[in-house]
Amino acid sequence: MDTLQAIFTRRCVRSFTQDPVPDEVLRQVLEAGVAAASAGNSQPWGFVVVRDPARLAVLRALSPGIIDDPPVVIVVGLDQARVRRYGGKEGEQFAWMSVGIAVQNMLLAAHSLGLGACPVGSFHRKGVRAYLDFPPDVEPVLYVILGHPRVKPTPPGRRNWETVCFAETWGVAYE
Amino acid sequence: MDTLQAIFTRRCVRSFTQDPVPDEVLRQVLEAGVAAASAGNSQPWGFVVVRDPARLAVLRALSPGIIDDPPVVIVVGLDQARVRRYGGKEGEQFAWMSVGIAVQNMLLAAHSLGLGACPVGSFHRKGVRAYLDFPPDVEPVLYVILGHPRVKPTPPGRRNWETVCFAETWGVAYE
Repeated sequence: MDTLQAIFTRRCVRSFTQDPVPDEVLRQVLEAGVAAASAGNSQPWGFVVVRDPARLAVLRALSPGIIDDPPVVIVVGLDQARVRRYGGKEGEQFAWMSVGIAVQNMLLAAHSLGLGACPVGSFHRKGVRAYLDFPPDVEPVLYVILGHPRVKPTPPGRRNWETVCFAETWGVAYE
Repeated sequence: MDTLQAIFTRRCVRSFTQDPVPDEVLRQVLEAGVAAASAGNSQPWGFVVVRDPARLAVLRALSPGIIDDPPVVIVVGLDQARVRRYGGKEGEQFAWMSVGIAVQNMLLAAHSLGLGACPVGSFHRKGVRAYLDFPPDVEPVLYVILGHPRVKPTPPGRRNWETVCFAETWGVAYE
């Protein structure tokens, strides 16, 4: 799928069929995350792929943000040791932005390969951390849930262009 | 350009020719940012496009992170009012991740359209905020610099797959 088409047609998909996600597709999604740029090339992340139905059921119980049965949950961990090693004064902020960059790579890769996906942030971090054996320095901070879309979501609204895009200084609309 | 190709061949480009960036290309890059998903659809951002040579010279003086003469700098602002309105307990973290998502959309759009781009975080926020008339609630947090690449950067190293991708629980390598 063309890059711009992927960017402009991607939607957050939260409802899935139970068709399995092929291994080679999932691997490309993960590789897209691994390939992401990050502040100082710190790559302050780790990705735990959960597909076991019993484990997914526990994750659902720990995650108000999961409203259906995704066949795959990628749990994104933020590694504070790497944040400290590479970060400056604003290192923590750049680390969060880096996570967003990696997540968007995964969302676009999934969409371009025919999957639906969505970032989910509402879950019990301490419970997930313990349940998935995260080390002390790594915190689970976001899920990417994915699978085959059951419905095609309608596009959400976006803010008006002239309130977001400015020319030369803030407040001067970009024509 | 194909989405996966864009994801896997994108590089951080920091050196540019002085060829101008066509308006319609720049607009698509901005639209890619505007179209990005964000936590609670908060869209906690604004984008200031700087192209005026005199203004770019001032930005360079305020920005140790700019090492060449980019013909375009998109200054990304984070709107704390929107973060507060939409954010929960972890709202600030999700806002930073949302900025990363929007920035990656812009980086991939730029790359797919033949431009080079790079996120830049090293600049004097207070100085840039004042110089570009940012309102009190909005902080400039990241640049996307872009233009036509002068050199093709070599791929930076990435961490080993087995230290980043895990199956079911942290520490179990994803095969």
